Amino acid sequence: MAQLTFWFEFASTYSYLSAMRIEAMAARAGVEIAWKPFLLGPIFKAQGWDTSPFNLYPVKGKYMVRDIGRIAQERGLSFRLPEPFPQNGLPAARLALVALEEGWGAAFIKGVYRAEFADGRNIASPETLASELAAAGADAAHAFDRAQTPEIKAKLRANTEGAQAAGIFGAPSFTTGSGELFWGDDRLEQALAWSGR
Amino acid sequence: MAQLTFWFEFASTYSYLSAMRIEAMAARAGVEIAWKPFLLGPIFKAQGWDTSPFNLYPVKGKYMVRDIGRIAQERGLSFRLPEPFPQNGLPAARLALVALEEGWGAAFIKGVYRAEFADGRNIASPETLASELAAAGADAAHAFDRAQTPEIKAKLRANTEGAQAAGIFGAPSFTTGSGELFWGDDRLEQALAWSGR
Repeated sequence: MAQLTFWFEFASTYSYLSAMRIEAMAARAGVEIAWKPFLLGPIFKAQGWDTSPFNLYPVKGKYMVRDIGRIAQERGLSFRLPEPFPQNGLPAARLALVALEEGWGAAFIKGVYRAEFADGRNIASPETLASELAAAGADAAHAFDRAQTPEIKAKLRANTEGAQAAGIFGAPSFTTGSGELFWGDDRLEQALAWSGR
Repeated sequence: MAQLTFWFEFASTYSYLSAMRIEAMAARAGVEIAWKPFLLGPIFKAQGWDTSPFNLYPVKGKYMVRDIGRIAQERGLSFRLPEPFPQNGLPAARLALVALEEGWGAAFIKGVYRAEFADGRNIASPETLASELAAAGADAAHAFDRAQTPEIKAKLRANTEGAQAAGIFGAPSFTTGSGELFWGDDRLEQALAWSGR
């Protein structure tokens, strides 16, 4: 079966768009998705940025909000920027690694994205995360504990280093088995088409 | 008739993709296109950049070449980066303003883009420009003279200021009569759909 790796960062607005549609699209295309949380912070730092480019370049930030607003509306999604933006996606990313290992990954990841970008909630807060863990059917206390293990921490670092090694500089990104890299929710259709080649 | 303004910069790789397909798409959509050359240099400078972001961020530049290569292939276009990159688009932009006034705008603009990104030629050189003027059926000597008039120079400055005032930060961009801004060749379909609203 064709495979596509979906690299996402919880702070990323365009990753939200892809997370909400990738399962249905992949099923239609007959492609298996490997969900890969990573952190943009270290990658942006290597480019000399200390925050989101949407904050560094306010005209770009203003455009992004309108661009995603239009797309979200077409897809029947709600969208708002949480405060502060960008959110700290680290705790959610570690929990997502636990979730993916234990089989409730997509449900948890989509729940966190909805909490953040549809409801404007703080995804670094234990309250938000606990409610999304519960909604995904997980044992919250167990998941929080497991997310703090050296194994999970190392896995997230490895994902971020893997992203950098793959030439990834933003999110969402998609990579195929043959080494093709696609950046942006607007390349998801093309990435799925290439994953089978 | 619905109208859409197409803001392009001759140095911009993604503007090439849009220039080569916008006429056919606009005709199908029943939309009239206003071609608007402008300069990204002053806009990038306002963001603190002294060259293309594809040079400032080499991983992004490497990705862009592959991304456009894939898209160009799908659309039956050739693509290569000219040397140096970015090219100086100023003389071509002034000539394009003459061309648009005189009714041979699209032919000249597409010819310059092909010379630059399909053939890798220098579009600041009088030789390249003269051959593209001739190919578009223009009187080259007259066009070069007219491109140096204060009126044409002022018009290009006004376009660039107009782009900045419209919140434009990259090329290609598209604006509708109702004030919607779209950035990127991948938003052309959506911009055409919105232009009729």
